[in-house]
Amino acid sequence: MANFQKLTPRGEDYSKWYNELVVKADLAEQSAVRGCMVIKPYGYAIWETIQQELDRRFKAKGVKNAYFPLLIPKSFLSREAEHVEGFAKECAVVTHHRLMNDPNGKGVVVDPNAKLEEELIIRPTSETIIWSTYKNWISSYRDLPILCNQWCNVMRWEMRTRLFLRTAEFLWQEGHTAHATKEEAEDFAREMLDVYSDFAESVMAIPVVKGVKSPNERFAGALNTYCIEAMMQDGKALQAGTSHFLGQNFAKSFDVQFLSNENKYEYVWATSWGVSTRLMGALIMTHSDDNGLVLPPHLAPIQVVFVPIFKTQEQLDAIMARVNPICDALKAKGIRLKVDSSEKSTPGFKFADYELKGVPVRLAMGGRDLENGTIEVARRDTLTKETLSLEGIEDVIVKLLEEIQANCYKKALDYRLAKTRICDSYEEFKTEIQKGGFLLCHWDGTQETEEKIKAETKATIRCIPLDDMPGFPKEPGRCMVTGRPSARRVVFALSY
Amino acid sequence: MANFQKLTPRGEDYSKWYNELVVKADLAEQSAVRGCMVIKPYGYAIWETIQQELDRRFKAKGVKNAYFPLLIPKSFLSREAEHVEGFAKECAVVTHHRLMNDPNGKGVVVDPNAKLEEELIIRPTSETIIWSTYKNWISSYRDLPILCNQWCNVMRWEMRTRLFLRTAEFLWQEGHTAHATKEEAEDFAREMLDVYSDFAESVMAIPVVKGVKSPNERFAGALNTYCIEAMMQDGKALQAGTSHFLGQNFAKSFDVQFLSNENKYEYVWATSWGVSTRLMGALIMTHSDDNGLVLPPHLAPIQVVFVPIFKTQEQLDAIMARVNPICDALKAKGIRLKVDSSEKSTPGFKFADYELKGVPVRLAMGGRDLENGTIEVARRDTLTKETLSLEGIEDVIVKLLEEIQANCYKKALDYRLAKTRICDSYEEFKTEIQKGGFLLCHWDGTQETEEKIKAETKATIRCIPLDDMPGFPKEPGRCMVTGRPSARRVVFALSY
Repeated sequence: MANFQKLTPRGEDYSKWYNELVVKADLAEQSAVRGCMVIKPYGYAIWETIQQELDRRFKAKGVKNAYFPLLIPKSFLSREAEHVEGFAKECAVVTHHRLMNDPNGKGVVVDPNAKLEEELIIRPTSETIIWSTYKNWISSYRDLPILCNQWCNVMRWEMRTRLFLRTAEFLWQEGHTAHATKEEAEDFAREMLDVYSDFAESVMAIPVVKGVKSPNERFAGALNTYCIEAMMQDGKALQAGTSHFLGQNFAKSFDVQFLSNENKYEYVWATSWGVSTRLMGALIMTHSDDNGLVLPPHLAPIQVVFVPIFKTQEQLDAIMARVNPICDALKAKGIRLKVDSSEKSTPGFKFADYELKGVPVRLAMGGRDLENGTIEVARRDTLTKETLSLEGIEDVIVKLLEEIQANCYKKALDYRLAKTRICDSYEEFKTEIQKGGFLLCHWDGTQETEEKIKAETKATIRCIPLDDMPGFPKEPGRCMVTGRPSARRVVFALSY
Repeated sequence: MANFQKLTPRGEDYSKWYNELVVKADLAEQSAVRGCMVIKPYGYAIWETIQQELDRRFKAKGVKNAYFPLLIPKSFLSREAEHVEGFAKECAVVTHHRLMNDPNGKGVVVDPNAKLEEELIIRPTSETIIWSTYKNWISSYRDLPILCNQWCNVMRWEMRTRLFLRTAEFLWQEGHTAHATKEEAEDFAREMLDVYSDFAESVMAIPVVKGVKSPNERFAGALNTYCIEAMMQDGKALQAGTSHFLGQNFAKSFDVQFLSNENKYEYVWATSWGVSTRLMGALIMTHSDDNGLVLPPHLAPIQVVFVPIFKTQEQLDAIMARVNPICDALKAKGIRLKVDSSEKSTPGFKFADYELKGVPVRLAMGGRDLENGTIEVARRDTLTKETLSLEGIEDVIVKLLEEIQANCYKKALDYRLAKTRICDSYEEFKTEIQKGGFLLCHWDGTQETEEKIKAETKATIRCIPLDDMPGFPKEPGRCMVTGRPSARRVVFALSY
């Protein structure tokens, strides 16, 4: 049951607001296992829509789904030198394969005789197990490209966890492709970045900056990491998706060569790319308000809810007789509509609950509406409502949903633009960065400077933008820290 | 690349035929991790269709998807006494959460300082973690019923594994419901059995016997296990799905009570139900033949393949100009159609490959067909082909797919009926059971008798049928072993 104690306002404590909202809106909760979450049906329904929308886009690119093992032999992790540094450390290690009754009493204990010869790791990401498999799939250029994706769970033993944003276990998709040439692999990594950015903007209504990571922030084992970066309402950046050009690193580590059409053995070129349930965190922190969740219609499990207001069964019957054809027409148009005529709770309780849950459009009809041939239409994004004629109401609602979708995006983009500014002095930077938002600054391209800035301010380079950022010309300058030349400004921010 | 060495014929070695087919048809393969499989894109595409079809049926019953943690605290397993006996023994145990660089050399080792206080188990099934969660979700009858399902991976440390049929890790769905009354829970468990049986028969074209398990074969912790049993081509039974009525066992173990509408605290009633990637094994062993896979059209990732036969680009262009409108029309009808005009391999090679992969209908057109306005139509199930006029060919193909679907089912049903017989003498039983098939026998209802039969013949009671089995009257009799009275015959078989 929803809890109607008010949410902590964002202005008071953004982090507390987030934690409360995730739980109260029935999206997710902590489980009995440290750092692992339960994704509740309402939250999972949003994730399912995310999956469907992405899956359709992947398949349009020729990508096929497959499934690779959950467990990875420990030794695989050390094959790719940088990869092990980045991933092998904090992970769940399986050492035994049997329990036995406790000889000293109740319960079960680990059977010491069932120790594995080699420990297994729960996948933190699957490059190693997948490239050990691709070795058997690839012998000639005819076998390429391989374009695989898997939807699965992964595990990274995080010390400090937050629902959706950082959990020990999370759900994601990881695409892994194999190509005959460097160019093809690089192009594919970029194409998948475009898929992510189009998805984030058109479905999730989250404006993103497409860019390249600096070497410090690169995926362990990649030659290049492309990313989409979003800005949350507290001005912090959130990395919403990454696509890696892995070069021949994994092919070399797992000895995956192919006979080219010029009859020469060459190492295969690779990409990998993923988004995770972290997107749920981005969704919440981009659109929601002090009253609860705000969902862009394209992702809302319930896009329209209808609440009849009645005292007697006769009134309910009369209202439903009038409204049923409208509901049917909306469903026929593909609208996800719910009718809530349950008597378990009052209309006021329902209104608050659907507001908390971010349902984009709420319709209500009482006795007077029935007489007047009108209906009350409430928008979640603007919290406004108006009474409209039932005449042609279906088309009005369809249009309204698209308007809400566009408004969610516009609001987020306006916010990001307002919080994005140029900064050319490092002294100024130190104060400005604490105010949140994106700072566009010149940087000399060295890891030393990047690390110094991070150590002194906690800010990181979120990305080197691929495209012009609206309103900000792509101009050369001098590094704000060292004064050395810089080809263009990069995006700095505090981040999740 | 497909391997065109012929399959071992089923008559020679059924088990070898199966193992070869799974790999050669690109369905799955062994991975570098003992007992864990890689599900390849072609196999996974079939699994995705299974998922979609089942998911739609679950949702029509009001079931919602959710996600619960992969890891389960060891102590949870011992809460339900029978459950721990059935499940807690052979499982993957996580004992540590960190690796470190090997101080003595290369690679990584388990960090002894990162030992978990309590070991965690990779879920073999999720009743325990889910009921520990439901405790927080349920306080009043208003919170009931809860109808959740999750699609996920599970792990059981099997010693002898076979692709799809018995693997350490496998994919499945597990539904877990909570109800206010015993009747409602029992009804729901039965309803889900009907969902499974309808799905198996109408989508997978696998005839099944619906029944109840004898106490020996019950799920650990259940009061009643309902199942669907299918017969494979070698006469062995395969359990294709189960639905359990769990009574109040898990509610009591995790102390999940609710305030009833009569204002009394009561324990909640439970069901759980699941099917797994094992269904892929059932699919293969029900329909396929010595030439490879045979797929019922409702599940085939490619339902129709079109192979043009050409020597020059002009010929190809002329053929495609004629065929493209037909392909478009078929796709518009929702047919999953592939055009294979690649020059990487010959038509003969393609024919053999699509046959191996079980594509239900193969279309081919060469120069003479083009002149005559005809097309060659080959059926995978009967291995017959005929040359048909292009006039109205779309409708012919749509009808043909349904005919193939029905034929797959009928063939399997005829086989099962032919291999199902009555047996009233235990001496006769001992010989007959070795010939495979279902034996309908009277049994006295005791575990002793069941265990004696199993020990002496390896046969088990697959189920006590819920409905009349066609051709076999439901009549009382005397146990074939003890002569004690029996209300009706039960199904015995050797099984996977």
